Amino acid sequence: MTSRPTMADVARHAGVSLKTVSRVVNQEPHVSAPVQQRVQAAISALGFRRNEAASRLARRATMLTLGLIMENISNEFYSRLAKAVEAAAAEHEALVVFGSYEERPERERMLVESMYARGVDSLIIVPSAADHGWIGEHGGLTAVFVDRVPPGLEQADVVLLDDVRGGRIATEHLLARGHRRIGLISDDEAFSSVHDRACGYRAALREAGVPVDESLVVREVFDPWRAGQEVTRLLSLADPPTAFFATNNRAAIGILQALRERPERPAYVGFDDFALADVFNPGVTVVRYDVTRLGRSAVDLLLDRSDTPRRVEVPVELVARGSGELPPP
Amino acid sequence: MTSRPTMADVARHAGVSLKTVSRVVNQEPHVSAPVQQRVQAAISALGFRRNEAASRLARRATMLTLGLIMENISNEFYSRLAKAVEAAAAEHEALVVFGSYEERPERERMLVESMYARGVDSLIIVPSAADHGWIGEHGGLTAVFVDRVPPGLEQADVVLLDDVRGGRIATEHLLARGHRRIGLISDDEAFSSVHDRACGYRAALREAGVPVDESLVVREVFDPWRAGQEVTRLLSLADPPTAFFATNNRAAIGILQALRERPERPAYVGFDDFALADVFNPGVTVVRYDVTRLGRSAVDLLLDRSDTPRRVEVPVELVARGSGELPPP
Repeated sequence: MTSRPTMADVARHAGVSLKTVSRVVNQEPHVSAPVQQRVQAAISALGFRRNEAASRLARRATMLTLGLIMENISNEFYSRLAKAVEAAAAEHEALVVFGSYEERPERERMLVESMYARGVDSLIIVPSAADHGWIGEHGGLTAVFVDRVPPGLEQADVVLLDDVRGGRIATEHLLARGHRRIGLISDDEAFSSVHDRACGYRAALREAGVPVDESLVVREVFDPWRAGQEVTRLLSLADPPTAFFATNNRAAIGILQALRERPERPAYVGFDDFALADVFNPGVTVVRYDVTRLGRSAVDLLLDRSDTPRRVEVPVELVARGSGELPPP
Repeated sequence: MTSRPTMADVARHAGVSLKTVSRVVNQEPHVSAPVQQRVQAAISALGFRRNEAASRLARRATMLTLGLIMENISNEFYSRLAKAVEAAAAEHEALVVFGSYEERPERERMLVESMYARGVDSLIIVPSAADHGWIGEHGGLTAVFVDRVPPGLEQADVVLLDDVRGGRIATEHLLARGHRRIGLISDDEAFSSVHDRACGYRAALREAGVPVDESLVVREVFDPWRAGQEVTRLLSLADPPTAFFATNNRAAIGILQALRERPERPAYVGFDDFALADVFNPGVTVVRYDVTRLGRSAVDLLLDRSDTPRRVEVPVELVARGSGELPPP
């Protein structure tokens, strides 16, 4: 049986890219007259017949706009994620519309609805800690969740970091340098990512036979200023920590700032790499991951629909730069 | 035959705008309780039934989406600009679709055309150094240019920083501390912003009676690595600079990195503030400006059309944090 010729066959025959064939078939601009003629000749020679449904889909794909909803585009983690999503989307000729909800779940919902109302029904969401059951009410809406599991949605596609391992390797790294009193500067543990990083921290301590001292664990640190305050407070304890692990890069800023003012030199490991991490002296040891992979996986899941929910886990690694290798005093 | 009542009928009956009816029907915020009741009464009186598909279409048509085209969303200057544009757009219930062209003018043009093809015809562009005459070919397209004057467009609306003054105050600051050999680490002077900052540098030197030594001026430094290389090279000259001024925050990263390895302590002033500037020791002295004002001004110009081209200039100021106050050796 001879199969019907495809656009790829036409492209090969005409010696042009698949994209060029698609442009000619869909009567899009940016194809020169001679190339158009060559493609048309190949179409005639092979007896290629445009499949209307497939073509419509292809066209829609070329006009696709993805939505990206996150906390705050100006935070380095989010701007790097946005870049990664944009790059992956561009390979599908898709554009990206973005929105920041700034820790306000009602604004997150408003952004989803606002995008949906504009016909943007393929969304990548870094979810807030609020219940997301309402997403199901929007027929035809496709969402992939990044970095955190959305509360209240059992059947969601998610792209997560290996957060438990991240918390674990950060803590093990400090334990291996002899630290036993390790402070944890944590965010909101209602976020699965933060929760899992803290779990990794506890697991590593437990396995090393070091009891978790709850007086060294600080939760709900949302901004750099507060992180600095808490580090200063912990360093003033009678039996202070000799090392810190922080669950995000916002905390890192405040902690580094606070340590500038202190005589102690506690070790420090952060979660999330940042552009200036190796410009500090000592360089900042961090748990790092491939943000490009995070963004690309989300776009891949979004464009390759499935009826069963999927979970992609992006690996993490520790990058030693100096701050995490400082010994206990 | 009686046609079905439309939203416009409801609006007339209730004595409110179509947008208000749309807001009530779509359960959007910003409608007072009395007005809501009036609209609901009109809906009941006329027997208006919301047509889901039509309603979605109508919403799509009336909802504004702005395009934001820039070099690279993951650079801190651009991510902060994106946040500012998003916040200003949100006040008009507008969303923002973004695109990064990564120093490739042909991708900049492709992004404009891709947004235009999707009906996004209100654009905020941080232009490349290429000719932008082609923008005029897109009827109905409205563009406001930010940070740089678009080459080849005489009649454009622009929102710029006071770049000449920025270069001038940075250089004057170093001159006032006794520096006479001040290195300039500059970007592509085909950008009006970079050109003007370098002009300010030259003007300040001239007015102080210090001849411009072209061997201390480095142009076309596009990445941190190169900036670091050039600083290292200049410091190895027989008569090296005792201070540096860099025209953007990308250069700052490389310069700080290079200085970590050097015995000299040259003074340093950068252009563009960044989140970690005061975490360094010494803190990084920069020329700063209100990014929110930059983004808001662009959105304001975009939504308040005019036939005569306008130019908004956002002021700059010097923030002394330590690195720019180091004395000559």
